[in-house]
Amino acid sequence: MKHFFNFSFHAGSLKQLLGWSLLTIPVGVLAGSASAFFLWALDHVTHIRQQHAWLLFLLPVGGVAVGLLYHWLGREAEKGSNLIIDEIHKPGGGVPRRMAPLVLIGTLITHLFGGSAGREGTAVQMGGSLASGFGRLIRVKSETMRILLMSGVAAGFGSVFGTPLTGAVFAMEVLAVGRIQYDALVPTLIASVVGDYTCSAWGIKHAIYQISFIEPEAASAIFHVDALLLLKAVTAGIAFGLCSLLFSELAHSLQKAYKKLVPLAPLRPVLGGVMVIALVYLVGTRDYLGLGITSPDPKAVTILSAFHPDGAHVLSWWWKIVFTIVTISSGFKGGEVTPLFFIGATLGNALSGLLHAPVDLFAGLGFIGVFAGATNTPLACTIMGIELFGAHYTVYFAAACFIAYFFSGHAGIYSAQRVAVPKKQVDNGVESDVSA
Amino acid sequence: MKHFFNFSFHAGSLKQLLGWSLLTIPVGVLAGSASAFFLWALDHVTHIRQQHAWLLFLLPVGGVAVGLLYHWLGREAEKGSNLIIDEIHKPGGGVPRRMAPLVLIGTLITHLFGGSAGREGTAVQMGGSLASGFGRLIRVKSETMRILLMSGVAAGFGSVFGTPLTGAVFAMEVLAVGRIQYDALVPTLIASVVGDYTCSAWGIKHAIYQISFIEPEAASAIFHVDALLLLKAVTAGIAFGLCSLLFSELAHSLQKAYKKLVPLAPLRPVLGGVMVIALVYLVGTRDYLGLGITSPDPKAVTILSAFHPDGAHVLSWWWKIVFTIVTISSGFKGGEVTPLFFIGATLGNALSGLLHAPVDLFAGLGFIGVFAGATNTPLACTIMGIELFGAHYTVYFAAACFIAYFFSGHAGIYSAQRVAVPKKQVDNGVESDVSA
Repeated sequence: MKHFFNFSFHAGSLKQLLGWSLLTIPVGVLAGSASAFFLWALDHVTHIRQQHAWLLFLLPVGGVAVGLLYHWLGREAEKGSNLIIDEIHKPGGGVPRRMAPLVLIGTLITHLFGGSAGREGTAVQMGGSLASGFGRLIRVKSETMRILLMSGVAAGFGSVFGTPLTGAVFAMEVLAVGRIQYDALVPTLIASVVGDYTCSAWGIKHAIYQISFIEPEAASAIFHVDALLLLKAVTAGIAFGLCSLLFSELAHSLQKAYKKLVPLAPLRPVLGGVMVIALVYLVGTRDYLGLGITSPDPKAVTILSAFHPDGAHVLSWWWKIVFTIVTISSGFKGGEVTPLFFIGATLGNALSGLLHAPVDLFAGLGFIGVFAGATNTPLACTIMGIELFGAHYTVYFAAACFIAYFFSGHAGIYSAQRVAVPKKQVDNGVESDVSA
Repeated sequence: MKHFFNFSFHAGSLKQLLGWSLLTIPVGVLAGSASAFFLWALDHVTHIRQQHAWLLFLLPVGGVAVGLLYHWLGREAEKGSNLIIDEIHKPGGGVPRRMAPLVLIGTLITHLFGGSAGREGTAVQMGGSLASGFGRLIRVKSETMRILLMSGVAAGFGSVFGTPLTGAVFAMEVLAVGRIQYDALVPTLIASVVGDYTCSAWGIKHAIYQISFIEPEAASAIFHVDALLLLKAVTAGIAFGLCSLLFSELAHSLQKAYKKLVPLAPLRPVLGGVMVIALVYLVGTRDYLGLGITSPDPKAVTILSAFHPDGAHVLSWWWKIVFTIVTISSGFKGGEVTPLFFIGATLGNALSGLLHAPVDLFAGLGFIGVFAGATNTPLACTIMGIELFGAHYTVYFAAACFIAYFFSGHAGIYSAQRVAVPKKQVDNGVESDVSA
């Protein structure tokens, strides 16, 4: 009973909880407000782009702007989300405050002119940068700075997608492949919940996805899951994992190719912009530009349309991969996650036809599964499935995310992520720097 | 692109997935069937006890039976769930096959005569023992045996509570405080889903808990969470954590006291049995005997009644703690988790009055929160909340479980659990054997 009646022990716990709250509530408010402004601005920018088709032709000019912005002012901020992961692993030079405005402006330019990019990179980098600035302001120690950075990532992620628990788990899970450590279990949850709360309080509404498929009564009455459907989900999970791997490897390869072709970094997005324009005419559609969540054109392929029969083409996922890595690898900003949702949802849509499976469920599985594979965060993505689509499909979500994670290799989209526990017992072809 | 086009790499992944399936599907079927038989028998045994009040007076005799059973036949099996955790950490002498029948018989005797005990110990030990027996039958290597044991734990846990994802996460999370490693992410999920499926296929139905409280429309329309209610959940989480700590420390202390008072191990349950009978007359109710999920007496305090106003007394949680540790620490079998659900749900019921909070939500928070604190598995318990009560309350579940985990100290009910990441940065009063 030595701990239960040790009141200084409990006082210590309470003090730490209060201390964490004092540290992370401001981080949540800052990151949540930044996300709210960002989402509001992104909405406007997307609206403007959709109304003025000619803006696309300025994408190369926007590219120069983003390139020069980072060339003149960027310094360490260029490394983006990887810098934050690195600083959490091993505090070094710190995350610069300038990262927040730079990535915000860079992302808005990217989306205004029709680059195919996401939001989570921006939210995570704004969250990390604001957390770091706040930490330096109040002069915290390096161990506390780690906690603050993780909280910033959690708050940014949780608020931009409206999924608070996912934000907290993502911030802990993304650091290393195959391991979650609870260094910041409570602080990340506080920051993420406060961030999501703040973002909602600013009046931001998130897209609502719906899976209305219900298992046949006979099956669900006897079993908790429909075995055949689960097997289909596993099969789809393999495809999602391979798709993640394809995305990550293509992104890394194209990044190298850009570097070789255009030695001057600020000019790379110009080439990227020109290629995106070429792609629009090659593929004959603008559906793969921007975020792709919704579109004023009811016939357009979007994330939301992918939840309906005939809401995507057989190769929509492939074209979104191409548009996105051409955009992102050249130096445009925003991140990969929303495009990964698009890729996954449209791939799920296509697979549902092949597998004779419910289209909304499989779009949902792809939405989280491809993301799980590309970022090596199977638990966070399973929880995201639950937070976005509800608890009814939990087992299918877990199956798709865990299997996609297992089949996606170790590379992932974040090069700073370390490999803590390799995915296979006997693992030859993989360089696992088993560290951290 | 070296991995995407490396077909032997994918073939290797596929081979491993098939290999895992071949290994873990039988484990799931075995453990799920064992859980089904166990739940069926437990139901009957509980029914018989409720119909024949005099059986309680034979509890000391039942105690001798359990004591002698383990004295003559038990050997290593005496260590119970801790032996399985130890063997997963560091394969040694193995988990004996006899553990399964012994714990099954021991638990049924415990419940027939009215001991206050649970089910998860039995399910986990049966799962682990069957997995180990299967592994030895097909002569697997020690690394594979670890995977099999984790799968057995997952399948046992997932099937006995009807919560497959929780089973998989629990099996990975329970090994060490503060860390989840993905050594067996896919195998535990397969085993747990198959276990749950098998148990349902045998016709077993699990108790259905319902939280029907819905947040006021005004609040939920603007915010994702009700801030005041969340603060109440955090406050309750602190109480749940302290309650877990109290339970764990009382259990360890009482175990030592039994050893001192009764040097002969097989006779300890006799004393335990006599004390339970005395408690029934001291407290004047039989509500705290057995599992306590339901009762034929509509006025009885049960886990289900705790979800309704006036469904529990102010000190029901305390009496259930006393009944349970008096039973379990003396050597009766079954485990602590279902009693922990009871303790948590009734504590949540009592707190809901104090905090002016919805009773069903807080009973649910206590249900998972006290369990999270006592076993140091905050993520598994959050997921259990989702699997049992639905996704609507995810943030409250996470808050209660994470906070309870943080306030429950490092001891927990499983002494074999290691401390990987201490709960506090600067942590004096705690012996953390940072290992594993």
